[in-house]
Amino acid sequence: MTLRVVVNGAAGRMGQSAVNAIEKDPELTLAGVSGRHDNLENVIKSAQADIVVDLTNAHSVYQNSLTILNAGCHPVIGTSGLTEAQVAELQTLAKQKSLGGIVVPNFSIGAVLMMNLAAQAAKFFSYAEIIEYHHEKKADAPSCTALCTAEMLKTAPRDKQADQPIKHTVPGSRGAVHNDIPVHAVRMPGVIAKQQIIFGGLDETLTLEHHSISREAFMPGLLVACKQVVHLEGLLYGLEKILEIE
Amino acid sequence: MTLRVVVNGAAGRMGQSAVNAIEKDPELTLAGVSGRHDNLENVIKSAQADIVVDLTNAHSVYQNSLTILNAGCHPVIGTSGLTEAQVAELQTLAKQKSLGGIVVPNFSIGAVLMMNLAAQAAKFFSYAEIIEYHHEKKADAPSCTALCTAEMLKTAPRDKQADQPIKHTVPGSRGAVHNDIPVHAVRMPGVIAKQQIIFGGLDETLTLEHHSISREAFMPGLLVACKQVVHLEGLLYGLEKILEIE
Amino acid sequence: MTLRVVVNGAAGRMGQSAVNAIEKDPELTLAGVSGRHDNLENVIKSAQADIVVDLTNAHSVYQNSLTILNAGCHPVIGTSGLTEAQVAELQTLAKQKSLGGIVVPNFSIGAVLMMNLAAQAAKFFSYAEIIEYHHEKKADAPSCTALCTAEMLKTAPRDKQADQPIKHTVPGSRGAVHNDIPVHAVRMPGVIAKQQIIFGGLDETLTLEHHSISREAFMPGLLVACKQVVHLEGLLYGLEKILEIE
Amino acid sequence: MTLRVVVNGAAGRMGQSAVNAIEKDPELTLAGVSGRHDNLENVIKSAQADIVVDLTNAHSVYQNSLTILNAGCHPVIGTSGLTEAQVAELQTLAKQKSLGGIVVPNFSIGAVLMMNLAAQAAKFFSYAEIIEYHHEKKADAPSCTALCTAEMLKTAPRDKQADQPIKHTVPGSRGAVHNDIPVHAVRMPGVIAKQQIIFGGLDETLTLEHHSISREAFMPGLLVACKQVVHLEGLLYGLEKILEIE
Repeated sequence: MTLRVVVNGAAGRMGQSAVNAIEKDPELTLAGVSGRHDNLENVIKSAQADIVVDLTNAHSVYQNSLTILNAGCHPVIGTSGLTEAQVAELQTLAKQKSLGGIVVPNFSIGAVLMMNLAAQAAKFFSYAEIIEYHHEKKADAPSCTALCTAEMLKTAPRDKQADQPIKHTVPGSRGAVHNDIPVHAVRMPGVIAKQQIIFGGLDETLTLEHHSISREAFMPGLLVACKQVVHLEGLLYGLEKILEIE
Repeated sequence: MTLRVVVNGAAGRMGQSAVNAIEKDPELTLAGVSGRHDNLENVIKSAQADIVVDLTNAHSVYQNSLTILNAGCHPVIGTSGLTEAQVAELQTLAKQKSLGGIVVPNFSIGAVLMMNLAAQAAKFFSYAEIIEYHHEKKADAPSCTALCTAEMLKTAPRDKQADQPIKHTVPGSRGAVHNDIPVHAVRMPGVIAKQQIIFGGLDETLTLEHHSISREAFMPGLLVACKQVVHLEGLLYGLEKILEIE
Repeated sequence: MTLRVVVNGAAGRMGQSAVNAIEKDPELTLAGVSGRHDNLENVIKSAQADIVVDLTNAHSVYQNSLTILNAGCHPVIGTSGLTEAQVAELQTLAKQKSLGGIVVPNFSIGAVLMMNLAAQAAKFFSYAEIIEYHHEKKADAPSCTALCTAEMLKTAPRDKQADQPIKHTVPGSRGAVHNDIPVHAVRMPGVIAKQQIIFGGLDETLTLEHHSISREAFMPGLLVACKQVVHLEGLLYGLEKILEIE
Repeated sequence: MTLRVVVNGAAGRMGQSAVNAIEKDPELTLAGVSGRHDNLENVIKSAQADIVVDLTNAHSVYQNSLTILNAGCHPVIGTSGLTEAQVAELQTLAKQKSLGGIVVPNFSIGAVLMMNLAAQAAKFFSYAEIIEYHHEKKADAPSCTALCTAEMLKTAPRDKQADQPIKHTVPGSRGAVHNDIPVHAVRMPGVIAKQQIIFGGLDETLTLEHHSISREAFMPGLLVACKQVVHLEGLLYGLEKILEIE
């Protein structure tokens, strides 16, 4: 028995990739697709879906999540834009319905690993900086992933009184400081998404780098989420919850 | 009360660095130094040492370790060359004497982190390769650290039947294969010690890199080992045992 | 007046990319496409082509090149497999016909730059190594580009008598040696084509790295070749001939 | 006959390295050293110097340069702080005296190569960014080398009207913009001096990286300058003038 999956937002670029990946996976069945002109509830019913992957947009994601849970399906939410309060409400609803679900800000297993390993390394170093590289069309800087990473880094204390005052020969080179971590953003063609976290200690550096060259990099994580979501209790947040990183 | 430390092998390059680092640390006292022309037992006695750091050579390390334990001191063994059987014997002796001790193949906190984080990442990827870079005078290739790292990597299974047979246009480019992991060694001036572990997945790579630019990089780990060794039960193996990596 | 271009081998992956790129370029007109079941001479005639881009295979490239020149067109040969003797014959024919042409082993402007800049740097360093990274399906190792790069590097002399004899703890880590340069090949998913050339000097290293993430990276060089070929005298070899690298 | 060299500023860290390097070089003789309490003119005379290497400070470098030329010696000026007007005056004086000399802002052959090769590459790419890494005690940001590199990069034109307006989620991540090139500065222990210049094109990037791990990296360039300066006509500016980069 394979799991029956509906992709909501199937016409978008991530949606198309998801449709292809699910069709190729022997443990999953693509039971239906849905878009902005469809009634999601009807699609779910006629598809007899077990799982709905939501890859839509910030405006509709909360309503979609309610619809999915109320239809008795397991939500895999890959759309950003849910507030903390909304996530909390969905967790309550999932509990009432006894339905496992998961909200995944980043489906890339490599990126999630990078962030979690960096969080482990941070406590052994007093200095850390982040450099993220994205294509020149990216609308924001720094990236959400970089800011989220900075928030996860609890570096070892250092005597900041002893920090050198820096003479800024041209202003702006020391990055956006977030959670005390300088974050640098590079924007150019030739790169899709890359991030480095660099830790500095006495005469040594430790660097973690993640590089993805297409949105296909998100598919293994999306497929894992679909397969695990039916076994979950309640609504979890973050792919790392199901990856069993030590 | 500071801890009284003897450095055995104080005339060597690592020994000199250790002497300087211990002298500067407010929690430690350099109680004595010892070299090839000294009687280690006598030096320990007159120094009233709590701890002996051994930085000598493969020929004398086992005898030195016995001497340290029999003198009632905590050994911090930074010398390579102990066999597994010898480590086991020293562990038995340490237990009899109720003395904590530690054998540390690599004092670099960054290198130990790199290896342990890589071991965590490995299970999420089917492909991994190691590239290590050392100065041109290094006597062996690949490095012990690289081989030890390869042994720690339990990558995800892949269908090796499907691997492409490679036409080797010039033989030798695919590295030394150890524990199924290709290991490449670069040798040139301008680098002291660097290692990269590269994991490959669908359209993404995750890389961990450690770079040390002098042997001073070993000192923070050596100092931690001295401070922790008095609290240990029995003789441990590896700096990671006292680093509390998650 | 735009230049009229025929793509031979238009059904292949490179051919498809070339067709799309030419169609979008305002200075070029896609005048025709040709494949294994077409008669190239007829396609050229009916297309009234100025230029033919050949992206076929090693078996047919020489015959195609003759056909293109004999039809009075400018050849842009992107197919590998021409022998030196064949290139020489084509150069003679191009001269007789007063037709400019170009044979391009690598259309990537970045890769060609990397190789030519590395050749300039080499004379200032006694140590150089190459690391090339390709996807796991690549049929050969090391890559042609890596071997070609190694051949271009004339490093500064060094006293090889003084080189340390290396103890190979596991055999094979020091790479494929070509033109005295160690070449290492990494094979894994997540990378399309990447190459690093690392030079080592006294306490410094200089690294040149080229990374391409799709075959679209070849298109700017292909378009430049089409636009320049009509102005060339004789048949040139290598994109660098028309790039005016200093 | 070896060349007789005086090191002015011999007590500083660069000065000490220079003294050691000159003493070891068979083509050079260390004829004298000078410091802040010496009379440079007297030292030059008693040393019968051919060449004076100035490694002092911005306050005294101009006066020192005059003294060296007026004493009939070839200056190798490694001190920063000369204004353009002062360099011009020194060039006039050197011409009058028929003395070759050289002002060298950066003695690292690798760094000079990196900058010059980057200048060649720039014209083939519309996007370039610089990331420089230095130890945490460096007094300024970005580094002079980074700014100087930015000034040398004349990138290909691009339609800046088409650039995406970026939403800055946290301000400051896009670097210090100098000559239209974003420059990012990383500051941490574990690194002495590293710089990357990254060029972005359609689905490809080209990166040049220079990394030096001690001030010894400046010595080969300093020794070359001493040997070449006696053959120069007039006062040159920049090590690249004598390196014969193509």
